[in-house]
Amino acid sequence: MLLYNNRMAKKLIRDAVHGDIELGALEIELIDTPEFQRLRGIRQLGTAYLVFPSAVHTRFEHSLGTSWMAHRIVDVLRRHSNISSSMETLIRVSALLHDITHIPFGHTLEDERRVLPRHDKDFARVRYFLEDSAVGRILEREGIQAEVVSALTSGGTLQSDIVGGAISADLLDYLRRDTYFCGLAQNYDARIFESFVVDGGRLVMELEKGGALRRDALSELVNLLRIRYTLSERVYFHHSKISSGAMISKAVELAIQAGFDAEELRILKDETLVWVLLERYSENPAILHLLHCL
Amino acid sequence: MLLYNNRMAKKLIRDAVHGDIELGALEIELIDTPEFQRLRGIRQLGTAYLVFPSAVHTRFEHSLGTSWMAHRIVDVLRRHSNISSSMETLIRVSALLHDITHIPFGHTLEDERRVLPRHDKDFARVRYFLEDSAVGRILEREGIQAEVVSALTSGGTLQSDIVGGAISADLLDYLRRDTYFCGLAQNYDARIFESFVVDGGRLVMELEKGGALRRDALSELVNLLRIRYTLSERVYFHHSKISSGAMISKAVELAIQAGFDAEELRILKDETLVWVLLERYSENPAILHLLHCL
Amino acid sequence: MLLYNNRMAKKLIRDAVHGDIELGALEIELIDTPEFQRLRGIRQLGTAYLVFPSAVHTRFEHSLGTSWMAHRIVDVLRRHSNISSSMETLIRVSALLHDITHIPFGHTLEDERRVLPRHDKDFARVRYFLEDSAVGRILEREGIQAEVVSALTSGGTLQSDIVGGAISADLLDYLRRDTYFCGLAQNYDARIFESFVVDGGRLVMELEKGGALRRDALSELVNLLRIRYTLSERVYFHHSKISSGAMISKAVELAIQAGFDAEELRILKDETLVWVLLERYSENPAILHLLHCL
Amino acid sequence: MLLYNNRMAKKLIRDAVHGDIELGALEIELIDTPEFQRLRGIRQLGTAYLVFPSAVHTRFEHSLGTSWMAHRIVDVLRRHSNISSSMETLIRVSALLHDITHIPFGHTLEDERRVLPRHDKDFARVRYFLEDSAVGRILEREGIQAEVVSALTSGGTLQSDIVGGAISADLLDYLRRDTYFCGLAQNYDARIFESFVVDGGRLVMELEKGGALRRDALSELVNLLRIRYTLSERVYFHHSKISSGAMISKAVELAIQAGFDAEELRILKDETLVWVLLERYSENPAILHLLHCL
Repeated sequence: MLLYNNRMAKKLIRDAVHGDIELGALEIELIDTPEFQRLRGIRQLGTAYLVFPSAVHTRFEHSLGTSWMAHRIVDVLRRHSNISSSMETLIRVSALLHDITHIPFGHTLEDERRVLPRHDKDFARVRYFLEDSAVGRILEREGIQAEVVSALTSGGTLQSDIVGGAISADLLDYLRRDTYFCGLAQNYDARIFESFVVDGGRLVMELEKGGALRRDALSELVNLLRIRYTLSERVYFHHSKISSGAMISKAVELAIQAGFDAEELRILKDETLVWVLLERYSENPAILHLLHCL
Repeated sequence: MLLYNNRMAKKLIRDAVHGDIELGALEIELIDTPEFQRLRGIRQLGTAYLVFPSAVHTRFEHSLGTSWMAHRIVDVLRRHSNISSSMETLIRVSALLHDITHIPFGHTLEDERRVLPRHDKDFARVRYFLEDSAVGRILEREGIQAEVVSALTSGGTLQSDIVGGAISADLLDYLRRDTYFCGLAQNYDARIFESFVVDGGRLVMELEKGGALRRDALSELVNLLRIRYTLSERVYFHHSKISSGAMISKAVELAIQAGFDAEELRILKDETLVWVLLERYSENPAILHLLHCL
Repeated sequence: MLLYNNRMAKKLIRDAVHGDIELGALEIELIDTPEFQRLRGIRQLGTAYLVFPSAVHTRFEHSLGTSWMAHRIVDVLRRHSNISSSMETLIRVSALLHDITHIPFGHTLEDERRVLPRHDKDFARVRYFLEDSAVGRILEREGIQAEVVSALTSGGTLQSDIVGGAISADLLDYLRRDTYFCGLAQNYDARIFESFVVDGGRLVMELEKGGALRRDALSELVNLLRIRYTLSERVYFHHSKISSGAMISKAVELAIQAGFDAEELRILKDETLVWVLLERYSENPAILHLLHCL
Repeated sequence: MLLYNNRMAKKLIRDAVHGDIELGALEIELIDTPEFQRLRGIRQLGTAYLVFPSAVHTRFEHSLGTSWMAHRIVDVLRRHSNISSSMETLIRVSALLHDITHIPFGHTLEDERRVLPRHDKDFARVRYFLEDSAVGRILEREGIQAEVVSALTSGGTLQSDIVGGAISADLLDYLRRDTYFCGLAQNYDARIFESFVVDGGRLVMELEKGGALRRDALSELVNLLRIRYTLSERVYFHHSKISSGAMISKAVELAIQAGFDAEELRILKDETLVWVLLERYSENPAILHLLHCL
């Protein structure tokens, strides 16, 4: 829960990565739902903490940070384009909720071992988290439910670009957050924000000035991708993270075969998923063995 | 688990706060026990994350960091005093294990509401974690069990000073770690280490030079205490943290009255404690109400 | 010189302490005058570099930074008060020019040994730099000359508070800048800006909320003063800085007695002042001796 | 001057980039010579301050930092190789003095416009600074003069590698120093030091482990080169820096044609060179015009 005085008031939250983050009343209301609070128990980097012990940050802080990065992008875009107050709300709320469908050890279960469909392609999950939930009811009351779902599941619009495109609020938060919590000396230059413009209703990085290529802007863009590469090499695809992730994933697979209902993953968190599997399948040596790596 | 190649080899672990931390084979062996790994699930600052979302760091990283700070203190002390290899081992291992007896929401249950005795005064818990456990067996094999227990439960020696005295490895780690993860702009100057000396078998801060008071050394010392004060004011005693902590504590009290065995707290973690209470006492409206603040 | 394309355009300057600083066309014009460019040759901390080698920053960067801090204060004040565009210009320009009357080793010559009047009390110097100069001509053309002089030499107004009051843009820049360049681990929390309000036409720090004292806001205020104290103790009044400063000051005194025109100090910089004295008074053993400490 | 109590004692100097730097008595003695102190007046990045105002750091701090980086490399090498105390002294002193032959706006005059030979190829200058000077007399007294000259002017040895090879103490200092003072968000990971080994009497970066390529070590190495590329693109070859440097260089050329003795450059600093040229060639419109860009 985040306490607040007045429904209209903004609230200042201190984030270790970005400093003070400003949240509006609607965002606070969405954050105070069980579905969003659940993200506090899902680590951003899965089992990476086995290699980088400080990497215990969760999808909760990352979601707040992504909303803030989206705000900073909109701030820059407004210098030359008109972005309505309601469009800004749609963008910030979509950014805030972009990871709401995540389940414990999500990337492992979805991408690496394909036990389950990807979080943004699993339409049952999308409906569960963005429609049939407390979050969903708030979005519907505000009349933005369909647009938020669209921004998060389809591409091709300014809002989907800002939230989750190639160079997005999502990337701009996790590049800083993952390096901060892993303890890696990588950072991008805040100057990168200056390159964002709206062109043809899409988010674009302007690399030209007076007809000539701005080499330094191009280099900053490449730097972002390089930091992501470094994180991939040292963290995301570290052999220990991948193998431990595979073990958990296999344990969940075996559990599903033994009757475990995958829909429970929508309520469980990293710690409680492991607890529940160890408790219910204490007679299953394969599952026990796989989970004792943690 | 922390993977390592060779039992004799040192291992370099990346910590977000201190950078690279060096651990010896004995420390790695202790870290790879269930009792120590359990600390990954106990947040250093309890429910502070409700106010400072990034404050999700755990007693695991803090223990590694305290061991490293103890190493740095010993390094400085060695310039003028003789500290044997076995004394250094005792100090590092004691620093590593100084929080091993912690239980979920420890400070709340112990200090604030006195539901249980303090972690270092609860002799049953000390025996459980430092004698009758995998950790205990390793300590005994190395012939240092009694000394480690003594260093952690009694005062009055160089090792107890270094690990948990007024100005200790513990303080030097958590001042940096808590500010880093809360996102507070406070830091102490590394120059503080230069003041440590051994005098009469005790850890002392030398504030004199050539018969005159070194005002800057005194100011640095005062600065440490000031940072702790700032953390107390803004984090440790924040009203939301205290009240949410009291609610959890009350829930545990009620559960104990309803038959919950407090010894289970030695196995449970923050998340699994709440899960277990919600599951077992789903018929108890008071407990349910208290735990739904999280 | 700072190059710029278009007289109307803003310019982004990268400052090591604050990151990107935005300057308007009028500020750039003022910066491009000989009087302002001269500040590049006057070190912010005089002879402190003899103790802290990295402390080579100058009044030039500090002036840019003070202008930026004034902008940040105005930004916060605008949430609840009306500050006209011309008032903001007056504030930013006054902040930019607040140190324009400084001479080499200014604090030493003025405050410590009183060889000359204080930079803001020396009316001949004020006239020279803010009226009879390129800077003065620009200020007159803009019709703000008298107000800028008043903001910098008198107190009692919002603008004089912001630029040079007890808690001012000046302080907020040099606390960060001096610690950054000396390599001291001190920083204030950006949250401090939130406390600024306008009350009765004056700059005030609001420490109350809902009738109760906000202890954390008070602590942040005290922290600012504490950082200044630490800088005074470790840097500003370091014995080596004071004694070397006194030696230069004495050399200038002796030179003035031997015919040196103090008005030359308005053109000279740290390095060229020493060069000129060594050249012209090469027959004066006292002056030679005093200056050879550098 | 750097004050010290006892000729035998080490001295701790605070550097903004590296924190506390330890210097031995011999290094302090060399630092306290006029030739070395002169480096305080030669900016590391020439006219880059016209683009990055905070880039006012000098070759003095860079030399101290390079000596410290050399110490850190030797520390790592000592884990597996024997490096004698005198070899370490040779390395640290060579690192300390590696830029002693620099003249004001050195890179501009030497590399870009070739007005003068490169600082390490100008044998008259090498003799002046390392043999016929106070520095030279100290080196001779210690019996290391020839080796220091050799380490700085020839390649092919461990000491020349450490001081100025491709990946050297020089690079490891200026990558951090230049980014720190320009305010660029680039940093290399301290883990890079772990890769240094001695092989066949040469400094080598070990990128293998157990027969396999350590990709992360390779990436860190590439990262160093990438930071240097970024600095080249944004700072070293910024058009304003290059053009202003060319103007100063042309002014010096014209002055030499008009009778200016290039050997004076061995005594002058950035500020005093410009002062002297403006004074002596006040009748030369071309020189006046070129120097008024500063």
